[in-house]
Amino acid sequence: MTSVDLNSDLGEGYGAYACGDDAAILGIVTSANVACGLHAGDPEIMARTFALAKARGVAVGAHPGFPDLWGFGRRRMPFSPDEIERLVAYQIGAAQALAAYAGHRITYVKAHGALANVAAEERPVADAIARAVRAVDRDLALLAIALTAQVPAGEACGLDVHQEIFADRGYMPTGLLIPRSQPGAMITDAGEAADRVLRMVEAGAILTADGRTLPTPIRSICVHGDSAHAVATARAVRTRLEGAGVTLAPFRP
Amino acid sequence: MTSVDLNSDLGEGYGAYACGDDAAILGIVTSANVACGLHAGDPEIMARTFALAKARGVAVGAHPGFPDLWGFGRRRMPFSPDEIERLVAYQIGAAQALAAYAGHRITYVKAHGALANVAAEERPVADAIARAVRAVDRDLALLAIALTAQVPAGEACGLDVHQEIFADRGYMPTGLLIPRSQPGAMITDAGEAADRVLRMVEAGAILTADGRTLPTPIRSICVHGDSAHAVATARAVRTRLEGAGVTLAPFRP
Amino acid sequence: MTSVDLNSDLGEGYGAYACGDDAAILGIVTSANVACGLHAGDPEIMARTFALAKARGVAVGAHPGFPDLWGFGRRRMPFSPDEIERLVAYQIGAAQALAAYAGHRITYVKAHGALANVAAEERPVADAIARAVRAVDRDLALLAIALTAQVPAGEACGLDVHQEIFADRGYMPTGLLIPRSQPGAMITDAGEAADRVLRMVEAGAILTADGRTLPTPIRSICVHGDSAHAVATARAVRTRLEGAGVTLAPFRP
Amino acid sequence: MTSVDLNSDLGEGYGAYACGDDAAILGIVTSANVACGLHAGDPEIMARTFALAKARGVAVGAHPGFPDLWGFGRRRMPFSPDEIERLVAYQIGAAQALAAYAGHRITYVKAHGALANVAAEERPVADAIARAVRAVDRDLALLAIALTAQVPAGEACGLDVHQEIFADRGYMPTGLLIPRSQPGAMITDAGEAADRVLRMVEAGAILTADGRTLPTPIRSICVHGDSAHAVATARAVRTRLEGAGVTLAPFRP
Repeated sequence: MTSVDLNSDLGEGYGAYACGDDAAILGIVTSANVACGLHAGDPEIMARTFALAKARGVAVGAHPGFPDLWGFGRRRMPFSPDEIERLVAYQIGAAQALAAYAGHRITYVKAHGALANVAAEERPVADAIARAVRAVDRDLALLAIALTAQVPAGEACGLDVHQEIFADRGYMPTGLLIPRSQPGAMITDAGEAADRVLRMVEAGAILTADGRTLPTPIRSICVHGDSAHAVATARAVRTRLEGAGVTLAPFRP
Repeated sequence: MTSVDLNSDLGEGYGAYACGDDAAILGIVTSANVACGLHAGDPEIMARTFALAKARGVAVGAHPGFPDLWGFGRRRMPFSPDEIERLVAYQIGAAQALAAYAGHRITYVKAHGALANVAAEERPVADAIARAVRAVDRDLALLAIALTAQVPAGEACGLDVHQEIFADRGYMPTGLLIPRSQPGAMITDAGEAADRVLRMVEAGAILTADGRTLPTPIRSICVHGDSAHAVATARAVRTRLEGAGVTLAPFRP
Repeated sequence: MTSVDLNSDLGEGYGAYACGDDAAILGIVTSANVACGLHAGDPEIMARTFALAKARGVAVGAHPGFPDLWGFGRRRMPFSPDEIERLVAYQIGAAQALAAYAGHRITYVKAHGALANVAAEERPVADAIARAVRAVDRDLALLAIALTAQVPAGEACGLDVHQEIFADRGYMPTGLLIPRSQPGAMITDAGEAADRVLRMVEAGAILTADGRTLPTPIRSICVHGDSAHAVATARAVRTRLEGAGVTLAPFRP
Repeated sequence: MTSVDLNSDLGEGYGAYACGDDAAILGIVTSANVACGLHAGDPEIMARTFALAKARGVAVGAHPGFPDLWGFGRRRMPFSPDEIERLVAYQIGAAQALAAYAGHRITYVKAHGALANVAAEERPVADAIARAVRAVDRDLALLAIALTAQVPAGEACGLDVHQEIFADRGYMPTGLLIPRSQPGAMITDAGEAADRVLRMVEAGAILTADGRTLPTPIRSICVHGDSAHAVATARAVRTRLEGAGVTLAPFRP
């Protein structure tokens, strides 16, 4: 009996600014990656998101990013691995505190946006993030982009590493994501995305755009919630998996 | 044998901006209140300050303030007690994480600047801070301004509350500080400040400007380190206390 | 032949955060109050908004607020009138520059949110804003909330002052807005709002909830664009006025 | 009769944070580059600095940088030339407004820190800055690092371009600065710096570390004021030049 996690970024508003339909997505996913106030989120939103996730039985993780509210954490900021280590530690601590405040508990860490992309490509940055997790709380798991530098970095730090795939992205022969600028990067049809996710979960492998099968322990599927379309895709993925008898549960209950 | 703590605000720079002579003050005090990044401090400075304090055997506390870097946390910002509760929780968590990263451990919380002043006067704000401490980690102590609303608020939350006096400030008949705008507010002579602190510690009481004796369990003395003069006063206080046989040690080792 | 202006706040997003349907509202209003980067807006959004307004023939004004992105400029921040004077001057200059960059030209200044409310009630703050406008460019007009301290403050500085009413708010016997916490504060029906605006424009007076007529030179009507409902009200107001033969044109072409 | 300008960065504090001895440096230089609030400075400091410069007869320029207070504008931020164009326009406008508020007038623009370095090396960024100056006010001059991409970029936009050399930096055979990581980058002896500046001004050329003479119209000399040592060097340069009969005056009165 296969079990897999569905994760999504939540709490990405800021003050009066809303971002995504958190209420809808909390009814679909099993894990919520919560922004920590530096690229999105604020203490009000963080506390509210943790409380909502708790009420819905959704697991929560810290979702640290670059300190770049203006760029929503999507710009590659010129920080050294050492600086990133401190930036990530800061955000994990803030998230742990507000989760505790809301009666919930962070069980994992997943890097956001440009920070995640840099950590996928550059091992020293992936190591910095893993060290930050270990320094703050070695019982936290690392949710890593499958087949990237994040995986061995987390394992080298002795962390419990779980690999995720993306529901709406195409994969290159290497198992890395097709860049958004290239054809096949985005899978816009909800049904197609759901079919593909099910095939990958059943195969226990990433299926690349050119037809390769890259065996990978898939523990989580990343879905988005920042548009009506994204929510529809998330829902389609969940329905398809459940219909095939796959259990949806946090990778870390 | 009397024992008392000397505390000072540290790590109050930001990026390239320096503030105070942290190296000098770390050789004098027994507890360091470390800014948490919202009114001063940043992850780099926090980690460095925690590591230095650890190396010098100085205890550390989180020093949360209003999110007001421009005003250095000295402006009374229009946040509700509920919002303050989340703001304080956020900052405690960030400080805990970076202290852990530096191999040290936060043992207490002390509010900064305008936040401390509001909490001294307004019980609902003092309650909010105490609740935040309790929610994040009920083993953290609260370092409170003596005879203010901070004390009963901390006690009502079941926190371990320790009261502090100020080395360089005059006291009103109520035991509250003489406002800076009035004569007698500041004690600028280092020797006079040291004498007065010793008398208060020996009396176990706040001595007011008009000659009253207000019995108070004095567990800590707040000294400043943001100018050469302030460092000299801090040093004079320490020397005077030690000369009189008072042991200087963290109120919470 | 009566002519009146329709104004709305625009460019109130920040980075990836959107706010309001600027494209729709630019097809309705004749003047756009553009946020200046301290409570909302950023240089990208400002330049884009000025360019769009230019293309649509919509006049533009600087819309300065408190430096409080988190609070969207809706919190009363503890700044002195002198500090507000500099804050407003800074924002006017930034807006002038980006309007020039976009080939357009700022013709007026209107305070935002809590800054506008404080300036409506406190003459020293209204004076500070008026002095800032005069210091930066005495040819800029002041768009003032009708019957408030903003009006005499602007006139005392020799500014060209124009008074605005709100399409969706009820008025007290004094001509001030009914606070949002009280019944009758908001007029939620688009048709009712449009009817009432037309009556006030035709009467040349503010009509209060208790039936008084307060003669006022109404030069502009403030409409909102931050929800589908708000856009509908704005459109209804425009349609009703045009249907009654009122010309819609910037108060300051 | 030779005349040359001495320029320095001023107003680089932020809120309670001080940076450099502005009062001392204003008694030495003839032009002040004033930070515009994004990498340093705030409206209070800007207005105060413009007023002080006015009182001392010192010319003022806008000194825009990357929006990076934490990094003091010294980090190369990932902004595109188009975004830089808007960022620079915003800052020039803000500086113009606060200069006007203080009764003074901006006469030039000089890029700060990492922005200046990128513009020295990358022509598209230099072009973006020049276009921003032209768009906001084509009567503003551009103060450019000698022999860099800033010079042709400014000239291509039809700006009045003036070239500066650095008093305390060694030059490579190309006329570019020796990187700080290499020997000879910094000239730490005040007397040596003063001698060298005088030789370059008299030669009308940059003198490289390896003995070359690169003819350049030197219109300004950049000195620093962020330490006692820097102020001493600035003073030595001024004294040496005046002793040799060189007139010190703004390149743009």
